[in-house]
Amino acid sequence: MKAARRPLGDTTVPEHLDRLRFPVDPWRLVETHFDASDLGTTETLFSVGNGYLGLRGNVEEGHDGHAFGTFINGFHETWDIRHAEEAYGFARTGQTIVNVPDPKVIRLYVDDEPLLLSVADLIDYSRTLDMRDGVLTRDLLWRTPAGNRVRVRSRRMVSFAQRHLALMQFEVTLLDKEAPIAISSQLLNRSGGADEYRHGAKATGGFDPRKAEALDERVLEPRLHHGSNDRVMLGYQTLRSGMTIAVGMEHHVETDVEYEQFTEVTPDLAKHVFRARLQPGQTFALTKVVSFHSSRMVPPRELADRCHRTLDRVRQETPAQQLADQRRWLADFWERSDVEVEGQDALQQAIRFNLFHLAQAAARGDGLGVPAKGVTGSGYGGHYFWDTEIYAVPFFVYTSPQIARNALRYRYRLLPAAERRASELAQNGALFPWRTINGEEASAYYAAGTAQYHIDADISYAVNKYVRATGDDEFLAREGIDILVQTARMWADLGFWRRTRDGSETFRIHGVTGPDEYTTVVNDNLYTNVMARFNLRCAAESVRKLAATWPEQYAAMVHRLELRDEEIDEWERAAEGMAILWDEQLGIHPQDALFNERELWDLENTPPEKRPLLLHFHPLVIYRFQVLKQADVVLALFLQSEHFTPAEKRADFEYYDPITTGDSTLSGVVQSIVAAEVGYHQLALRYFWDSLFVDLADLHENTADGMHIASTGGVWSALVHGFGGFRDYGDGLNFDPRLPESWEALTYRITHRATRLRVTVRAEAVEFAIETGPAVSVTVRGVPHLVTPSRPTVVELADQGPRLDGSPDPAAFHGTVRADGTVVTTSLPATVAESADHLDPSEDSDEDQLVD
Amino acid sequence: MKAARRPLGDTTVPEHLDRLRFPVDPWRLVETHFDASDLGTTETLFSVGNGYLGLRGNVEEGHDGHAFGTFINGFHETWDIRHAEEAYGFARTGQTIVNVPDPKVIRLYVDDEPLLLSVADLIDYSRTLDMRDGVLTRDLLWRTPAGNRVRVRSRRMVSFAQRHLALMQFEVTLLDKEAPIAISSQLLNRSGGADEYRHGAKATGGFDPRKAEALDERVLEPRLHHGSNDRVMLGYQTLRSGMTIAVGMEHHVETDVEYEQFTEVTPDLAKHVFRARLQPGQTFALTKVVSFHSSRMVPPRELADRCHRTLDRVRQETPAQQLADQRRWLADFWERSDVEVEGQDALQQAIRFNLFHLAQAAARGDGLGVPAKGVTGSGYGGHYFWDTEIYAVPFFVYTSPQIARNALRYRYRLLPAAERRASELAQNGALFPWRTINGEEASAYYAAGTAQYHIDADISYAVNKYVRATGDDEFLAREGIDILVQTARMWADLGFWRRTRDGSETFRIHGVTGPDEYTTVVNDNLYTNVMARFNLRCAAESVRKLAATWPEQYAAMVHRLELRDEEIDEWERAAEGMAILWDEQLGIHPQDALFNERELWDLENTPPEKRPLLLHFHPLVIYRFQVLKQADVVLALFLQSEHFTPAEKRADFEYYDPITTGDSTLSGVVQSIVAAEVGYHQLALRYFWDSLFVDLADLHENTADGMHIASTGGVWSALVHGFGGFRDYGDGLNFDPRLPESWEALTYRITHRATRLRVTVRAEAVEFAIETGPAVSVTVRGVPHLVTPSRPTVVELADQGPRLDGSPDPAAFHGTVRADGTVVTTSLPATVAESADHLDPSEDSDEDQLVD
Repeated sequence: MKAARRPLGDTTVPEHLDRLRFPVDPWRLVETHFDASDLGTTETLFSVGNGYLGLRGNVEEGHDGHAFGTFINGFHETWDIRHAEEAYGFARTGQTIVNVPDPKVIRLYVDDEPLLLSVADLIDYSRTLDMRDGVLTRDLLWRTPAGNRVRVRSRRMVSFAQRHLALMQFEVTLLDKEAPIAISSQLLNRSGGADEYRHGAKATGGFDPRKAEALDERVLEPRLHHGSNDRVMLGYQTLRSGMTIAVGMEHHVETDVEYEQFTEVTPDLAKHVFRARLQPGQTFALTKVVSFHSSRMVPPRELADRCHRTLDRVRQETPAQQLADQRRWLADFWERSDVEVEGQDALQQAIRFNLFHLAQAAARGDGLGVPAKGVTGSGYGGHYFWDTEIYAVPFFVYTSPQIARNALRYRYRLLPAAERRASELAQNGALFPWRTINGEEASAYYAAGTAQYHIDADISYAVNKYVRATGDDEFLAREGIDILVQTARMWADLGFWRRTRDGSETFRIHGVTGPDEYTTVVNDNLYTNVMARFNLRCAAESVRKLAATWPEQYAAMVHRLELRDEEIDEWERAAEGMAILWDEQLGIHPQDALFNERELWDLENTPPEKRPLLLHFHPLVIYRFQVLKQADVVLALFLQSEHFTPAEKRADFEYYDPITTGDSTLSGVVQSIVAAEVGYHQLALRYFWDSLFVDLADLHENTADGMHIASTGGVWSALVHGFGGFRDYGDGLNFDPRLPESWEALTYRITHRATRLRVTVRAEAVEFAIETGPAVSVTVRGVPHLVTPSRPTVVELADQGPRLDGSPDPAAFHGTVRADGTVVTTSLPATVAESADHLDPSEDSDEDQLVD
Repeated sequence: MKAARRPLGDTTVPEHLDRLRFPVDPWRLVETHFDASDLGTTETLFSVGNGYLGLRGNVEEGHDGHAFGTFINGFHETWDIRHAEEAYGFARTGQTIVNVPDPKVIRLYVDDEPLLLSVADLIDYSRTLDMRDGVLTRDLLWRTPAGNRVRVRSRRMVSFAQRHLALMQFEVTLLDKEAPIAISSQLLNRSGGADEYRHGAKATGGFDPRKAEALDERVLEPRLHHGSNDRVMLGYQTLRSGMTIAVGMEHHVETDVEYEQFTEVTPDLAKHVFRARLQPGQTFALTKVVSFHSSRMVPPRELADRCHRTLDRVRQETPAQQLADQRRWLADFWERSDVEVEGQDALQQAIRFNLFHLAQAAARGDGLGVPAKGVTGSGYGGHYFWDTEIYAVPFFVYTSPQIARNALRYRYRLLPAAERRASELAQNGALFPWRTINGEEASAYYAAGTAQYHIDADISYAVNKYVRATGDDEFLAREGIDILVQTARMWADLGFWRRTRDGSETFRIHGVTGPDEYTTVVNDNLYTNVMARFNLRCAAESVRKLAATWPEQYAAMVHRLELRDEEIDEWERAAEGMAILWDEQLGIHPQDALFNERELWDLENTPPEKRPLLLHFHPLVIYRFQVLKQADVVLALFLQSEHFTPAEKRADFEYYDPITTGDSTLSGVVQSIVAAEVGYHQLALRYFWDSLFVDLADLHENTADGMHIASTGGVWSALVHGFGGFRDYGDGLNFDPRLPESWEALTYRITHRATRLRVTVRAEAVEFAIETGPAVSVTVRGVPHLVTPSRPTVVELADQGPRLDGSPDPAAFHGTVRADGTVVTTSLPATVAESADHLDPSEDSDEDQLVD
């Protein structure tokens, strides 16, 4: 099987742009017409949120919708996982993010006719997410059935400055003739069993493990509801997890006309209704101020008090002030975080869109993790995975360290639960759950869940990155060290020593799953072993450093964790002896001890309708083949870059890239980074595009379930680490850029300690400028340079690294005879190899009489 | 770790006898006093059934009980398996055997006082299961609160002769003074949601994957209920699977006294009530005749007609005739099947008890499989596993071939479902489900379920054994061949060719699980490969033989299965090239490609409270170690005996035996057989005892869930194949006995074609006698002998094979350095190695404020 890889095609303009219906605009995402056919996607793309509270981009009118969603990070219901076949230690507590009461609903009636977008005669329509304002704005001109033109302008914002605040504006102007209008502004509990739209997203049928588990009908039990024309307040408690929530709203009306107002409050629905009679040219405008507070234990009544205080403050400061604060917050954010690509406006827009959603997913998590979908949807049940540490935290480490710190503190707080889990899995130390909200393992399929022990090392990796970049020894000494020690203990206990044939002792790790979920429960997974080695070394170094620099904190830690000196030696020995497998014949790192024994899946001949593989093949089938859901060895090449030679990187990349499906959105960004490093520039750009537009162009056809937040973080990594060539290891900041040919320049910022460094990569040089703070040292391709605040440092570049054409040839390995005479074979499962009618299930009429 | 194995102890009398409370009796199991504390166990032991219908040994009074059970083989309810995390091809349809309406209830009132065993003043009590009569009899003398002594005698039988018939007798005699009596004889639907006793068995708490899945409250929907004093009839349909059932009952009264009778029929309860006034010495006796008919589709009304016909026949023939038929049926059975051990009465009783329960589990399955618990309990949901083919069918092949044929026809009828399942698993041919009732895979944990592809070979093995022993070419040509071809196709497609380092091509089978469920989803599992090789060869040979001997049937088969000639060559090539792994250093067959890479679990130091391992360790932990739930390589040594040398058998046994937990009851019998063969006589006897008394002494503490039918079949195998030394391969019947020292003689029968051969093994000789049929050839230790009907053939034996003391020394391998310098290490998971308080889950009070 020597088929060539699909051609890379045009490598100057991504073809994904053809799928977009948003005009190019460097700072805004604009929808120019209403389209009911892709509501699920646009609801996600036009979500607003602050990492605590998220409002999907549902229409104000609350009828046309794919999935009405209002989410609070970490606010979840629990349920008993009922395993069809039970075993010891299986995950017990299901956790699913709750759709909290919807504050977005504002219904308009003119002449008693409701505005309903899907049927309305819209003369004009636009919706804009402005990434500098942090506001979603909709402008439309509606011709009512009576022929009256009505301008409706609405805005929606979730405040970055005030964590518990959402603000909406709704402005109605009649253009043609006098008419009565009514506006019903609501808080609607859609998790109360009364919402007929709730199951819209599920009606599509079929299974998809990436969606959230459906909860019972009634999730939120009403605990309080009261209100007046001034303000209403609803309070709830989840049935099983016992979490509490309160939501309050009030309205500020701006109009010259007389209006009447009344209020209705029931346990699952509160509304303020405004009625007025408008003359042509007259405007009725209101601002809806909403506050959410939530807790694991505080009674709803007390949370209501907190809502009152938030609403009081807005009343005092005015809504305009909130909008101004939002702009200021974002100005700061962009100043620290923006990445610019000169001469590529469409890319520029998409890049900012990804970074903006990163902020929306995490900015005010304030001690929570980053859910796989942020707060834009219920996909993956609102769970936290390693996405937080490996994909999101690095961005914040180098742009908004406080946000990174808060996310890491979430893991510290769950350490006791991770210690209990380790014990349940018969290990010392701590084992973090693969997916969780409350700290308990919620991964019910252990082979691709609990078995991913590497999450311990991933968390340690992020802790280390954060401490390196910030110098926050306080965090390390009081909290980070506990994570490092307890995870190192887990690795030291999990692995074991085995004498190899050459007489040396190596440290083995058996029965774990690496990042690639198309191969599970293997021995000596390269990624796991390399990351565990890092984890063990990092813990030992950190402990020794603490002992040397801060004796009191060291003593306190030793006491707290009952740490013995021998343990540190043991970690170092285990790290030194760690088994890092190498296939002499193929000249690559095998993904695991048996990986290269497997048949190669013939991806070239797998038709599109059979992908992603996970939706068309039983795990047992997939596991028998060399085929990757996502980068595994290749991710290790990036994260532990300094431990691999350029030749190893190239060989590994060339081997694994052709057998990686990219069925996970976590893969493309990593492949982009390593492709750029080893020299596949065009391929790197293509992977980057595939990641950049994963949601904007709905490339995985599930953006409706929420944004792929890990991918948005990966976009930043691909820009800064991939094309920007930044690596943070050894003694300083290392740079080895790979600017795509079609880009004029790439500019990004890195916050390191007290300095913010601006890096601009051009074809012929890289320029470093201090934006704030003292001088820093940088290393460009091994040569150190000092960058001082006085003026930029320019380092000339002879090239953009090695340059390889196209993409790796699968035939380079597949079907070839190895040095030892064994053959690398390519194959397909029977159902792909044969005609499709084989799959047709036909009822068997022969079984009528099974019993008697 | 060089700890010695536990000593074998006294090897003349099993210590299990101390746990029994049943006096030694070669043909009967007798309970001499009522004990409410082990009701669960005795309900199972005193079950009566015929392989179609089973009645647990519940007390007639229907109140004191652990689990009231009435089961019809294959009569099941279905339910949607809700996987906590879904994936393509996961089992969808749960299947659980239904507790059908209980006909056992007969309540007695004397002076309006109910007889309740747990509180009654019992002067005398005995309960007897007679294995020649096939009847359960209870005799008791009750002193009523009024001081009146009442003799109550009851009998219960499920007919072997009439599949749909159960018969009960109830006889009351007053000894002291006149009193009114009332007898309420009932049919009670306990699956109707109304039975307060239903959940008794579940109240014990905790999970245990070996128990049945709990069904919803109402399983059986009433479809008809009517009746008179003559007869009542109830009919039902299961809610989800749509199966139908009818049950009818009538009573024959024998008494001299006047009595009155009335009848009450409601949807879930029908009763006949008899009232009389007895004088001292007078007896009231009734016979309750019950008939069950069931179906997948026939309406209950039609089934009721069938019940009527059964009841009519009994009325005509009289109940006494049924009891006589039962004795006759059993006389035939024992004549064909009995195994005698001279001078060991306690063993003799237990042996017959096991064989009797085999008959009760399968005799009248008439085209159904043999559930793991027969029809004695709901354990394992009433599912069929490989137990049928590997543990039960061999017994019937050599004693009651028609029963074996019926069981194999069950698999033939499910072949279309197995073909669909193969397609779902991306394979050609057929893949039989690991556990099922209706043919669909019901194993929700695929690693220890669906992945056990070896079930295809196990079924083919039983087909081959049956055809060899019976010469039933008709079955082979019309049905068996389809199983052989479709399973061979599966293997040919599943495996693949790989060139090895020495240049030869071998056929590999990856990603499957062998019989040992403590290691899953491995490559080149020895058992699987050896059995797949057999399957491929057997299919090829059978097809070639059919072509040569029966051209019309061959042509029909080729057309039916679209068989191509090349396929047959391909099977033969695959069989020839099958990878059979061998560890040069240890000199053993590794259980799979990576097995010997694992750490050895230190069973010596695993405390009893941590066993069975499956209830105390996460699968991921168990899978990392060399530790076996049950024989795997060792089972292959037995089933494919002719393909291993004596030296290989001994080495493999000595390696695997010390690391086999026996946490499965399927293990001991196999270990006994191979221990005997390689020379560990005392150990063989101990394993035999552990199997022989597994239920009688409740050794696995779950006999309450039902009889371990595979083990009962294994007891026969251990006697006939193990101590009896019988192997059926090559050209004839091969014998190489291993009589235990403490036994005077062992006698068993084998039906081969038209001949029934009696074999008697003594210390100095083995004697063959023809009981019926023509002469046969036998081979004793390689020397052929002809056995003629005229007189027995006696072959002298110099010894009973090799003789090794004690049991294999684990230290022989563990902790030793292999030839290549690698070390075989022994280890324990942290939770075993450390103090138990590590496992204490303590609530974490630090998580109060996870959200805000």
